[in-house]
Order: sequence, then structure tokens, then C-alpha cells
Amino acid sequence: MINTDILIRARWIVPIEPDGVLENHAVAIQSGRIVDIVPSDEIATKYRAPEVIDLPHHALIPGLVNAHTHAAMTLFRGLADDLPLMDWLQNHIWPAEAKWVNPEFVRDGTELAAVEMLKSGTTCFSDMYFFPEDTARACLEIGMRAVVGLILIDFPTAYAQTPDEYLHKGIALHDDLRAAELVTTAFAPHAPYTVSDGPLTKLRTLNDELNLPLHMHVHETAHEVAEATRVTGQRPLARLAALNLLQPNLVAVHMTQLTDAEIESVARSGASVVHCPASNLKLASGFCPVHKLLQAGANVALGTDGAASNDNLDMLGEMRIAALLAKAVAADATALPAHLALRMATLNGAKALGLDDRIGSIVRGKSADLVAIDLSAADTQPVYNPISQIVYAAGREQVTDVWVHGKRLVADRALTTLDEAAVLRKAKNWQEKIAGADKRR
Amino acid sequence: MINTDILIRARWIVPIEPDGVLENHAVAIQSGRIVDIVPSDEIATKYRAPEVIDLPHHALIPGLVNAHTHAAMTLFRGLADDLPLMDWLQNHIWPAEAKWVNPEFVRDGTELAAVEMLKSGTTCFSDMYFFPEDTARACLEIGMRAVVGLILIDFPTAYAQTPDEYLHKGIALHDDLRAAELVTTAFAPHAPYTVSDGPLTKLRTLNDELNLPLHMHVHETAHEVAEATRVTGQRPLARLAALNLLQPNLVAVHMTQLTDAEIESVARSGASVVHCPASNLKLASGFCPVHKLLQAGANVALGTDGAASNDNLDMLGEMRIAALLAKAVAADATALPAHLALRMATLNGAKALGLDDRIGSIVRGKSADLVAIDLSAADTQPVYNPISQIVYAAGREQVTDVWVHGKRLVADRALTTLDEAAVLRKAKNWQEKIAGADKRR
Repeated sequence: MINTDILIRARWIVPIEPDGVLENHAVAIQSGRIVDIVPSDEIATKYRAPEVIDLPHHALIPGLVNAHTHAAMTLFRGLADDLPLMDWLQNHIWPAEAKWVNPEFVRDGTELAAVEMLKSGTTCFSDMYFFPEDTARACLEIGMRAVVGLILIDFPTAYAQTPDEYLHKGIALHDDLRAAELVTTAFAPHAPYTVSDGPLTKLRTLNDELNLPLHMHVHETAHEVAEATRVTGQRPLARLAALNLLQPNLVAVHMTQLTDAEIESVARSGASVVHCPASNLKLASGFCPVHKLLQAGANVALGTDGAASNDNLDMLGEMRIAALLAKAVAADATALPAHLALRMATLNGAKALGLDDRIGSIVRGKSADLVAIDLSAADTQPVYNPISQIVYAAGREQVTDVWVHGKRLVADRALTTLDEAAVLRKAKNWQEKIAGADKRR
Repeated sequence: MINTDILIRARWIVPIEPDGVLENHAVAIQSGRIVDIVPSDEIATKYRAPEVIDLPHHALIPGLVNAHTHAAMTLFRGLADDLPLMDWLQNHIWPAEAKWVNPEFVRDGTELAAVEMLKSGTTCFSDMYFFPEDTARACLEIGMRAVVGLILIDFPTAYAQTPDEYLHKGIALHDDLRAAELVTTAFAPHAPYTVSDGPLTKLRTLNDELNLPLHMHVHETAHEVAEATRVTGQRPLARLAALNLLQPNLVAVHMTQLTDAEIESVARSGASVVHCPASNLKLASGFCPVHKLLQAGANVALGTDGAASNDNLDMLGEMRIAALLAKAVAADATALPAHLALRMATLNGAKALGLDDRIGSIVRGKSADLVAIDLSAADTQPVYNPISQIVYAAGREQVTDVWVHGKRLVADRALTTLDEAAVLRKAKNWQEKIAGADKRR
């Protein structure tokens, strides 16, 4: 008998590596890591643990990885919907950000986002926003995994005045987080159209040493690509390639406008793509050619984008939309089957963020970032194939338990490290201030 | 003081007619009908009722109308996913139907569907399936509103052998239901490619007298249209027009393949279209031009289709996908705004089914088919605009209470007229039988 910390017995385990479903298996966890996966009826003969959890109607999956969001923007959820992109940005989002975004906003917004993400099975998110120090601090307190983006943008904001100041603050934060297990960093140059060649070159030089992911909005809209071509004579992706940024570290978000040659070059470069279907649809940005990218061998992950353009942070819902949409875009009902959508939302996300040695699948040695989904409700009955039910039929309310690095952050649908009522009170306070000021009300 | 049966006070009421949101209003209900809508602080001075319900964090909306489903097929949910349409139909769904569909299957499947639909805010559904007598009986017992389709198809099934037998059984069921308030009927010729001219002409003659809705799959896939054109020399819609079926009673489901001229002629005819976005995406059928249809003046309703091709019956989710997808298809972020998506899922559905004098909006004299959605969870906070939150952010789990014709069928998330545990037990029994037989397992 081996002593360990936690044993979890589940009706189904979907390890992602390898493909498929393990029926009636159990996971043994020690010091935050997965130490074994064995049939449930053998676990008691091999391991002893103070905490044994039974999930008799549940599927246990790796924690979902939200590879692109702006967590603090959850405080702007639904502030300005059904508007053209530029009206939305220029008349609502940017003025609201200029007026309200400060460290307190970022902390409170990140906490609200964390409530929603954890309760819907997201254990790790890749963030891009101002005051990433406060995002990082909130995640460390909560015990949630995150990759905070070291934001870089040409124009001044409340957070920094010059590209150099953004970079200096980013490097300082990166240094502060060196010892953190759960919170890591990525460079986050906002987009080709908001960061000029000088800062991008400086960032690349810095990254030759640091080797961080480069988290960037790329080819989000046709307008962006047309404008860049008009102004610079190059499509943004060609410019990034010329700047030596199209390489395995690049995490290119959206990518709705791609020629077949660009799809090939992205795949060849080893860069990752983050597909954000709900946001792309809502802002009428276009359709990311997910099936073609996957067929070309590119690593495609999934993100919700911010709640101001989605309007939720629900990765189960995002997986479902991604799996449905890819079939229609490819005109092929076999495109992006359920198991592949689940892989995009877990292992591919981990890979994009450079974390696939730690998370993204249920294998020995990886962190115990795990999510239990109860499939016994009418909405997911009967169960012929648990992966189909998870991707096409399950809702966020069927997530019952969530572990990050072996710590149970959601237990029977309740948060263990966040005071949900207090988070909601703070969100309501922000709403009253912001709604009073938004002209549209 | 006027005596009435029920008073419901809500933080927000979205009446659909007129557009907009009423804050802190109340609805008075008597004998199943809405008798008044007044500010909450006036209700107690005008009305007295034995049942007073407070919904302090909720939006009260008209019951959702699922304008196209095959309820009993919920027992096949997830049986065969990610397959091309013809493989799915010919090798999985049709063999499963041939083997299993009988009155007991239809009753048990309809009950499972009703659990899911009621708990997610659907109060009325338009069904197309075999043994509609059993669907009708189940709905009458539950107290749920339904329009059962009088199925007509050329080929023999366990339900009927010839087109005439289908029609005779349909007329008999229609006669049986004459006195029913909650369950009405529609003719349901399956599709242009499965019903020939003879039976369609007979149906039309019968309907000159009965004036029922004509619920039919039309232009679902490019293949259907191409095959029909090859075999008959006509596109299916042109054939229906020649048979005098393209008129206000027609409820044309799917309609993913439409020329601009067809969009005009559908709008001019007064026919309704039922958009089923999840099913169209999942089967890679194509994109219904919802924005163009609405702009042309057509009545467009929403449906989930059956759970075998969705894989849920969640109209909140369907509204969200419809609102998101229409923007990308129209390349216009202002296309199908949230309030219009909610109208499609309520009043437009009622109109398609010929029930807009009874349901579809919260106005005096209509039936009290009402749904309460609690917006206080983190997922829908903050609330700048309740309609945005309902369409883009709310999940089925936020539905707390549902009334059909004044009867509370869901109270605090629990069903009052269905034994949910018994329904789930029966679903599990079917699963064991069906999974054993499906070759794919």
C-alpha cells in the first residue's frame, strides 16, 4: 500500500493522452501531481489516501485551458452589444476603459472572471490586459493557474506611458513571478496595428533570452488586414514573419483571415493559433479556418476572448460552438469531432502556452488540474459516448468539482478559495458606477 | 381590490410586445391568462391573490417556443455524432428507428425531452415524429404546450404503411384533440424528397378546410436541392409553390439554401421559416440567411431540431448561437440583435404555429406561458441590459420557474408534474437496449 494525498474514482476518465475513454478508473494524486491512473477496483489495493472522492456519474477531464481572454473586462459584460466593431470600441469600450481601468478594477474583474471560469471547469487562462500585476496577484491568492500577458501597446494608458515603460513593467513582473508555480507570463503585444516595428523588435530581442509565449491578436478582421496592406504594403502576418516573430512561441489569436499559403506557413512555423469562435461571430469578424489549420498540422487552441465580446467565459460552450462551426465552415460533418474539440480546449491550449509538460492531459507526472462533469442530468442522458455529451450537450452547471495542482478549488459546485458573495457585491458596485456613466443607458 | 389567482413580481419583465424592458413590474394571472401588467408597487393596491411570487433578481419572459424538434429522438442523443449526414441517417438513425421506435419509445422519449425543455424555459414545442398520439398524450399529462405534427411520408414505418394511412391517423388524432387547450396539431409532411406530389396534393385539399400549419423540412442541404433539381427539374421550393403549398401556413424548417429571389418569394408568401442553427452547423448543412429573410419581412422562428443532431433542446443556447451566427453570416455586427433573437424564440415561433393570439408575448388576454430567469449568478453579472444577458450570457440552469397557461410546471428548478427520477430510469433502460444493438459501440 502506497500512501498518497487524494484518490478520485470516476465513472469515466478522458485523459486526452491517449485518445479515448477509461471506464471506472481512478486517479492518485500526491503533492499536486498525478502519480497513477488505474482501474477503480484496483485503486484500494494499491493506494491509501486521507481524501477519497467518488464520482459515480461523472466524467473526469483535464482542466480546461482558456487560451485567450481579458479577464477583468468581465465587469463590462453586456455593456455595449450588437454594435459594429469600431462603434463598440471607440464609443463604448475605450472610453469606459479610459475612465475606469485601474488596479482595483483589474483585481475585482479578475475575481468575477475567476468565479465564472472555475465553476465552469476552466483551470488555466491566458490573459491580456492592463495592470497584469493585479491579475497575477488575484490568481495567486485564488490558487488558479494563469499566464498573464505582459501587455505592450504603442499608446499611453493609465498603466504605462511608453512602449519602454510597458516592457519594463512587464520584465519586472516576470522577475517577480519567477518562483510561482501557478502563474507564469507571456509577452502580449496587443496587435500588429497597435504595436510598431521598434517595440516589436525590442520585444523579440528580449525574448531571445526569456523564451516566453508571444500572445497577440492577429488577422482578427478583414478590415485590419486591408488597412495594414494599404499602409505598410504587407499583410500583418508577413510583417510578423519579416520581424522574425512567426515562430513556435507565437500565439496568434483569432486568425479569421488566412490564405491557404498563410495556413501552410503558420503550420510550418510551429506557431499556435487561438480560435475564439463566439467573439469572431459576435463582432462579425469572420470564420477561422480551423479544419484547414488542423489538417496542415498547426496547433489550434481555444479561447473565449473577453466577456465584453462573447459574453461569457464558458469553455464548455466555446468547445461546442467550435465543434459545430468548424463543420459548417469546412462543409464536412466529420470536421473537428468532439474528441478533437476537447483536445483543443485542453492539451492544445497547454501547448500554445508552453505548459504542456505540466498540464493539458491526465498523465503521470503532470499537475492534477482536473474537472469533474456530472452527466446524470436529463440534459446529458442517455450517455452513449461521454465525449459527445461533454462537448455537445453538457452545460457549465454540470461541472461539480475542480482541482488545480491538486487543490480542490470547486467542491460540489462551491468555491473554496473565493468569497463569491463578496465578489458579486463588488461587481454590483462597479456596475452602478459604470452604468451611470455609459452614454448608451 | 380585484381577486385573481397568481401575482408575479419581477425585477425585469421583457414583454416582447412592445419592445423593451419593464423594470420592477408585476403580472396578474387569472384562469391561466394574463389579466394585467402593472408596476410592482401598484400591484398590491389593485389585486389580491392566494399565490404571490417574488422574483427579485429575475427577468420574466414569455415561454420559449421551440418551433422544430423531434422530441422522442432525445433517446438517441449522442448515439452517432461527427458523421456525414447520409452515414448518420442510413447506418445509425434509420436502423435505430426501425428497431426501436414504438409508442412506448415515443412516450418515454417525449418525457425525457419535456424534462429538459421545461427546465430550460421552453413552454411549447412543435414536434415531428412517428406515433404523435403518444407525444400528445404525454404533453397533456404533463401540462406542456405542444403542436404535434401529423407525420406524412411515402415509405412504410411501424406507425403506418401508406400515405393514406398516415393521413387517416393524422386526421383522427386532430379530431381527438379538438377540445384540447394545450395540444394542437399541424400537418407534418416530412420533406419534399420523401413525400411525392399525390400525397402532398391530398394534404393540401384536406387543409383547405382544416387550415393547420404545414410543418416541413425544406432546403436543408445543398445535396437535397441539387438532387431534386436533377430528378424533377425544379428546386424543391418551386415544386412546393407549384403545388400551392408556399402560403402563410407553411412552416419551412432549415432553409439553408436560398437564392435572393427565393428569399423574396418566401417573404411575399407569408410562410414562416424555422432556423435551426446548431443542427445546420453540426450536420454541415449550410447557413440559413436569417438576416436577409428578416430584412425581406419573413417571419423567422427558432428550433433546436432533435437531440440526435444538436445535441440538446436548449432554446437559450439556440438563441445565442442564432444571434452570434447571423452576424458573421451577414458580415454585420448589428445583424440579429439580442432583442430580435428573443422575439424569434417567442412571438415569431408562436406566429409560425398559428398560436400568436394565445402565446408568444406578455400581453393582456394571452395565456400565462412565462419563464423566470435568475440573473444574479456570476455568469450574468453585472447586468447593464437584461436582454443582452438573457441571450448572450444566461444558461439553462438560470431558469428557475416556468408556467404554462398559468400552471407552475417548474417551481424553484423542480418539476411539478413529472417524476424526473422515473423518467431518467426509463431513459437508462432504453440506453442499455439501444447501445447494445448499435454497431458503432
